[in-house]
Amino acid sequence: MSSVNETIANYIAAWNETDSARRRSIIERTWSADGSYLDAHREGQGHAAIDAMIAAAQQRIPGYRFRLCSGIEAHHDRVRFSWSAGGTETAPSFFRGTDFATFAEDGRFHTLTGFTDAAPATA
Amino acid sequence: MSSVNETIANYIAAWNETDSARRRSIIERTWSADGSYLDAHREGQGHAAIDAMIAAAQQRIPGYRFRLCSGIEAHHDRVRFSWSAGGTETAPSFFRGTDFATFAEDGRFHTLTGFTDAAPATA
Repeated sequence: MSSVNETIANYIAAWNETDSARRRSIIERTWSADGSYLDAHREGQGHAAIDAMIAAAQQRIPGYRFRLCSGIEAHHDRVRFSWSAGGTETAPSFFRGTDFATFAEDGRFHTLTGFTDAAPATA
Repeated sequence: MSSVNETIANYIAAWNETDSARRRSIIERTWSADGSYLDAHREGQGHAAIDAMIAAAQQRIPGYRFRLCSGIEAHHDRVRFSWSAGGTETAPSFFRGTDFATFAEDGRFHTLTGFTDAAPATA
């Protein structure tokens, strides 16, 4: 059983982990087996598809680190939180998004939906 | 078939409509028959339960008007938008929330999850 905070920390870590075996292991701790991710530009259902999706995003913006940039607001089996990436000398474009998720009974994500709060004009 | 904008306009209207027959009619245009609402403090599934939930909220803060206070961001069958209420001479407490919804195929809400952005300390 994962806590809300652990699952979200794992989620952020998955986006930052470029070692494929470690990333896949983190993803398995983050989403249930039938878990899904969906935003305006990418989607994945199941661990393998989510892993491939994150790997592709990492190759598109190498060197970007994701971090939690809001409180974690949870009620019932739902949660909202925001993340940001970039805005640094080596990763100048600034990205920010807000994710809404539903939890499976074991505390891993069942569904996660991403919305964009900030993205560079060239993204 | 309702558009995203129509469904959200109906949703805001439902919270403001205190005539019970008109409110119920708006709710039927806003949610599918098995549609649901869930936030930290209240919930309803199906038109009758959602109607009773909104009626109870209206009695708790009479005179408050809800308005959309953000853009409407939709992708796939999901949407995010924010609303506010109060902050006026006759309705001094200021409330703001962000709602995340999934759509049924006919464009009405299937699930709606509310999160609080601002509420008075006494709420």
